[in-house]
Amino acid sequence: MNASEFRRRGKEMVDYVADYLEGIEGRQVFPDVDPGYLRPLIPTTAPQEPETFEAIIEDIEKIIMPGVTHWHSPYFFAYFPTASSYPAMLADMLCGAIGCIGFSWAASPACTELETVMMDWLGKMLQLPEAFLAGEAGEGGGVIQGTASEATLVALLAARTKVTRHLQAASPELMQAAIMEKLVAYASDQVVATLGTTSCCSFDNLLEVGPICHEEGLWLHVDAAYAGSAFICPEFRHLLNGVEFADSFNFNPHKWLLVNFDCSAMWVKKRTDLTGAFRLDPVYLRHSHQDSGLITDYRHWQLPLGRRFRSLKMWFVFRMYGVKGLQAYIRKHVQLSHAFEALVRQDTRFEICAEVILGLVCFRLKGSNKLNEALLESINSAKKIHLVPCSLRDRFVLRFAICSRTVELAHVQLAWEHIQEMAATVLRAQGEEKAEIKN
Amino acid sequence: MNASEFRRRGKEMVDYVADYLEGIEGRQVFPDVDPGYLRPLIPTTAPQEPETFEAIIEDIEKIIMPGVTHWHSPYFFAYFPTASSYPAMLADMLCGAIGCIGFSWAASPACTELETVMMDWLGKMLQLPEAFLAGEAGEGGGVIQGTASEATLVALLAARTKVTRHLQAASPELMQAAIMEKLVAYASDQVVATLGTTSCCSFDNLLEVGPICHEEGLWLHVDAAYAGSAFICPEFRHLLNGVEFADSFNFNPHKWLLVNFDCSAMWVKKRTDLTGAFRLDPVYLRHSHQDSGLITDYRHWQLPLGRRFRSLKMWFVFRMYGVKGLQAYIRKHVQLSHAFEALVRQDTRFEICAEVILGLVCFRLKGSNKLNEALLESINSAKKIHLVPCSLRDRFVLRFAICSRTVELAHVQLAWEHIQEMAATVLRAQGEEKAEIKN
Repeated sequence: MNASEFRRRGKEMVDYVADYLEGIEGRQVFPDVDPGYLRPLIPTTAPQEPETFEAIIEDIEKIIMPGVTHWHSPYFFAYFPTASSYPAMLADMLCGAIGCIGFSWAASPACTELETVMMDWLGKMLQLPEAFLAGEAGEGGGVIQGTASEATLVALLAARTKVTRHLQAASPELMQAAIMEKLVAYASDQVVATLGTTSCCSFDNLLEVGPICHEEGLWLHVDAAYAGSAFICPEFRHLLNGVEFADSFNFNPHKWLLVNFDCSAMWVKKRTDLTGAFRLDPVYLRHSHQDSGLITDYRHWQLPLGRRFRSLKMWFVFRMYGVKGLQAYIRKHVQLSHAFEALVRQDTRFEICAEVILGLVCFRLKGSNKLNEALLESINSAKKIHLVPCSLRDRFVLRFAICSRTVELAHVQLAWEHIQEMAATVLRAQGEEKAEIKN
Repeated sequence: MNASEFRRRGKEMVDYVADYLEGIEGRQVFPDVDPGYLRPLIPTTAPQEPETFEAIIEDIEKIIMPGVTHWHSPYFFAYFPTASSYPAMLADMLCGAIGCIGFSWAASPACTELETVMMDWLGKMLQLPEAFLAGEAGEGGGVIQGTASEATLVALLAARTKVTRHLQAASPELMQAAIMEKLVAYASDQVVATLGTTSCCSFDNLLEVGPICHEEGLWLHVDAAYAGSAFICPEFRHLLNGVEFADSFNFNPHKWLLVNFDCSAMWVKKRTDLTGAFRLDPVYLRHSHQDSGLITDYRHWQLPLGRRFRSLKMWFVFRMYGVKGLQAYIRKHVQLSHAFEALVRQDTRFEICAEVILGLVCFRLKGSNKLNEALLESINSAKKIHLVPCSLRDRFVLRFAICSRTVELAHVQLAWEHIQEMAATVLRAQGEEKAEIKN
């Protein structure tokens, strides 16, 4: 495919993408396929000769779409949101074209420098303490990781390296293994200090945990993967209070801040804690500027060597929405979750299982776990909406997460009516079962 | 931005991308900027109000492009290639629009199933032993990791878990730390068994290493990050001989197989070795099919939880190039590296420092490291072409890697003439210096 065919096919793809997203409400949110559906639909080996683009684009509706769970449907209320916005998609096209691998400053200076500045922009939007910002001469700074798992692993490894070196310096006779035996990682029952857990969006109190970590010389990593985006709104910022005690902090703009996956934002107060743990300097990656204080070689901040130009997505999204637009987006989702909460509370057959703080409502039918499992099963089998459950103190609970960029009050109301219908059926079946046992 | 504006802006971006790649030869391959160039060019905080798309697109040429190292310029011969093709870019647009997170089968069945089948396609293209393929009931199979670093880390952790469980079963009294002390990882001087090292593209002999690992019960992981793509050509396949002794194998289609970053292909013979090490099953990720033998939950095969629909890129590229097209692409690069090698060998001032097997030529001026450092410095300062060095047995060596999809013999010849000119200047300077010392 040459540039001129790409111009034509690329524009067709732009239209396909716009059609898909404009029409997503009309697609069944969860697919009908059974495991193994796809293999028989395509050849067992790659073709020897090139195929046409038409053949491929036809197969998208025939083979791919029937097996897609539509995460951006306004009837998708499962897991947590994953970001999707047009500005981020435009930036991703540019990122793909530049196609640089930004492992060092020299490998593409713009890739590194825009990332540092965008992480400062975002840090300021969250009102992070100054110590986390790179600025022009700061000791801290931000980095884009692929996922919160990577950010947490990086924090754990950096913490381990730091404490191991500290112990070895204090007691040079200690063996590596003996030190390993002494290391302790504390975690909450949802794992690291967490702001906005996946199950029920609960919050650890950093103002309690933070000072203890500080006194005891423990590395404090704070993960706010989902909830972090909300902290750009002043009315939710208090949930982040205590972050000043943390050594590292991360959250995922790719969840709730309209920056398409992957983009997990991580900050540290001392960049040398990361670069000390992950430093990798073979000759072919050295460059003349690397000992300058002004530059950053992000390969020392992460596990992989390679990295894309992901800050372009942040730059496009922040500029095209503006801070106010992003705040309005968060607020709309929180309002919708409270609207759903109000609907649930009006129906005495149901109960709310955790305080609704952001965009997640945990609810259930008053009654047994079995009853609620049956309710979820009937909802997800009907495939009009899609939900997933969680377990809270051994109770089976349904999660209703506001996810889609295009979800409106009308979708939430329709979803609730549908849940009520399903509940009525499940309760009726339970009643009949009980009556049968009685007879 | 709504769908209709996206249609307009998306098409503009398609043209921008095509213009950029068509005109890339005219851009200076390495940028002129100094560290810290970008920060003063943009505001210190994100805008409160939305900006227009025009403002952003203007800034791309003003702020971003002056700081880009153009990896896809035909004058870029540094590091190793990073893949770029139009079909992969089209697939990435679709991937961004679907925007699913494929951590489980249910999270988007097509995302999981296409990946399994594409990894089988690719495995067959490489003539991998049957044991590495998933097929319909195989014990092995493939997974797309982000990078070779992640694949290697996954292999190491899986190997550690396997041997730890084995030792604990044999000697239940052993403490975790005592077991950790006993673990040994062997590596070559370029690290894991490696086919095609970064420095000089050398190859470990798997037919020697493999049987020993097999006898001693050692996990053998083989990394062919760059070279792996070449194994789709029958004439290079022998370099992979011995992979039948490996437990896991990976290479990066995102380097040399026209599938844009990130796409690191990893296969294992026993998928349970991975799923046993990384299993993660909270209630909100469970689904009704998960205990079926037919389905795959890829979150158990990797470190992160989230994953994009990356197999679309493989599907588009394999179909639009065909196996023959991909083979032709590899062969062209190898021919170009041999053409460069021949040019170097004709000039007696130079020497070739490692056997040229694939697309990399390691060469230097006969003489001191200092002389070669000066040569590289003068080449990279002139910025007509871009190279990086390596160190081979303490000798400073220049690497000439065939990288760009659009590089032709004429570019290689121009590059060589330029290197010769630079060499003449450097040698003249050295001669004058010596004469001065003599006087």
